[in-house]
Amino acid sequence: MAGTMTSSSVGIVTPRRAQFSEALRLACGRVLQNYELVYETYGSLNAERSNAILICHALSGHHHAAGYHSPEDRKPGWWDECIGPGKPVDTNHFFVVSLNNLGGCHGSTGPTSINPETGQVWGPDFPALRVRDWVHSQARLADYLGIECWAAVIGGSLGGMQAMRWALLYPDRLRHCVVIASALKLSAQNIAFNEIARQAIQADPGFAGGHYLREETLPAQGLALARMVGHITYLSDDAMANKFGRDLRSGSLELGGEQGAEFQVQSYLRYQGSQFSGSFDANTYILMTRALDYFDLAREYGDDPVAAFSGARCSFLVLSFSTDWRFSPRRSREIVDALIATDRPVTYAEIQADGGHDAFLMPIPRYLQLLAAYLQRVRSESDAA
Amino acid sequence: MAGTMTSSSVGIVTPRRAQFSEALRLACGRVLQNYELVYETYGSLNAERSNAILICHALSGHHHAAGYHSPEDRKPGWWDECIGPGKPVDTNHFFVVSLNNLGGCHGSTGPTSINPETGQVWGPDFPALRVRDWVHSQARLADYLGIECWAAVIGGSLGGMQAMRWALLYPDRLRHCVVIASALKLSAQNIAFNEIARQAIQADPGFAGGHYLREETLPAQGLALARMVGHITYLSDDAMANKFGRDLRSGSLELGGEQGAEFQVQSYLRYQGSQFSGSFDANTYILMTRALDYFDLAREYGDDPVAAFSGARCSFLVLSFSTDWRFSPRRSREIVDALIATDRPVTYAEIQADGGHDAFLMPIPRYLQLLAAYLQRVRSESDAA
Repeated sequence: MAGTMTSSSVGIVTPRRAQFSEALRLACGRVLQNYELVYETYGSLNAERSNAILICHALSGHHHAAGYHSPEDRKPGWWDECIGPGKPVDTNHFFVVSLNNLGGCHGSTGPTSINPETGQVWGPDFPALRVRDWVHSQARLADYLGIECWAAVIGGSLGGMQAMRWALLYPDRLRHCVVIASALKLSAQNIAFNEIARQAIQADPGFAGGHYLREETLPAQGLALARMVGHITYLSDDAMANKFGRDLRSGSLELGGEQGAEFQVQSYLRYQGSQFSGSFDANTYILMTRALDYFDLAREYGDDPVAAFSGARCSFLVLSFSTDWRFSPRRSREIVDALIATDRPVTYAEIQADGGHDAFLMPIPRYLQLLAAYLQRVRSESDAA
Repeated sequence: MAGTMTSSSVGIVTPRRAQFSEALRLACGRVLQNYELVYETYGSLNAERSNAILICHALSGHHHAAGYHSPEDRKPGWWDECIGPGKPVDTNHFFVVSLNNLGGCHGSTGPTSINPETGQVWGPDFPALRVRDWVHSQARLADYLGIECWAAVIGGSLGGMQAMRWALLYPDRLRHCVVIASALKLSAQNIAFNEIARQAIQADPGFAGGHYLREETLPAQGLALARMVGHITYLSDDAMANKFGRDLRSGSLELGGEQGAEFQVQSYLRYQGSQFSGSFDANTYILMTRALDYFDLAREYGDDPVAAFSGARCSFLVLSFSTDWRFSPRRSREIVDALIATDRPVTYAEIQADGGHDAFLMPIPRYLQLLAAYLQRVRSESDAA
């Protein structure tokens, strides 16, 4: 952290745990008798309990969105650019809640937890989850924290899907829904990339049918490959070109082969893959990509997004990024079109950025300005509430 | 074949083998003392030897481009839509040569061949190849067949790179160069996808460091994964959406998980992957993707495509497909811009097609018309020659 924590940082934060003993019936029909959620909060809940914001994380995210866990931390939380005093999600005014979703591998109950019925690690037997299961469990966390209605629910990518599902499942429990770089459902191409990621994990002998913890093996290469596939699809072609071009890390273009040259982009991907595979659980990755694949906001509304949003009562901010080809601006405009047709208040912006899907995690000035301006409005309302 | 062979088919063809005993010095510095190329020909060489066309294959292609090997064959050669009597590459007029490239796994000398120095299968020790090595070996095949100058050299994707390299290395030995869905060099994103494919193969324990033939193992899952990655990038998002949408093959959207639903696109990819892994050599796949990654037409011309093409003496047809995101129309326009700046005669068309990169293998009417019209011109010239 040395020297990087400024007055705009939430500083040192300590994750907390909430235990839930009321059974949670899941979309798959199975029931979790009890579970824990790990979460962090930044800022203070006001007396009216009207200034709470929920942050929903994406595929490989977790509860640690802002600040530092210890003075030795080299990096802050994953959305520290956006959350803090004076930042777009301004903790001088908002009480921000960020959790690790059910099924995660950063402290909340998931595949690495012990199944109380067997005394063994859940592993691949952990129930399949859908986005709505996360939303229901987040609603219980809101109850636990005494938050009747969120000032805003915010999420990017898979997090945006949770935010939209909130608007449909609990229309009276959020005033604003912020959907960043997301979509009403995945395309066949999106699903295909996730399928390759899952197959790479499952093909690794270390996966052991998902029982790698019990077998004391690890599908490290498979998980690294899965991450590499994801990583390419999160970056734009231009961003990769700018970052690496065709620069060589070693060797010459003539020699090539096993002993020869290597492009920068190759070693970068390998590094990213191996970093990830040391810190993420393979069963969680499979579970979360499946939740992503199966998400389809309008399915039970006759495949009509307008019908789906007709029950929503909040206002919406929808943001997309020009070079995001995994969740392209076209997919965000589908959300916006449906909201307009439903007469929901909606603000939309397509932000010029060369970062691809990953742009939603980057400190792009116009992006931060738009978020800040929108949340200033949210704040005026919650002050008035 | 039953019932599918019409008067527009070249009919039953028999692959031939050409042996070369003059040493071939490769770009990597190593020398192949002797090698074999397997090839097919369609149509007849005229007395002037002016009507010969060379077909260069792409990543996973081979010599069998048209016709059938036996009456029992269910499918014809890979470019049968384009090659035959009355077809764009009209075998009533042209003598068409199609070979399996050096390093291939369909009969030409490659990683599955015996290294005469060791008496063992080459495997991963087969020399690294560059596109220019293929061109030099193809030039020797031309010598062997008595063809001094090709009426045209034609290739799509990696094949287009060979065609362009021909124009630079042997400017007097081709009159026309047809470059379809290709590029001057790969982007970092292209390389990244190839890297994932190679890593998937190499991570498979069956790969055995490339010695799977000797060890009697097979990296079947790794090769299948590699093919799946490739396959997604060859199709457009729209093509996948049209072909599969989010249709389920089995199960329900709620159940999911291992025992639950499966999207059509998943089972399609798995099928494609397993088909491929049963018919293609893993070391060849690695070798060919590396040749693709390292191809950079203008590198030794000061990275200036105009300088590169300034030695070319043939005319060019360049074709691209609107939804090809692996080798986008923008990449073809870079070729065209350089040719225009060099005052080379060039015809360019971007063909509207939703098939992505794979469109170059599809019978798209406008595509076939353009090819046919251009080759009609080539034919008039070769008749006049």
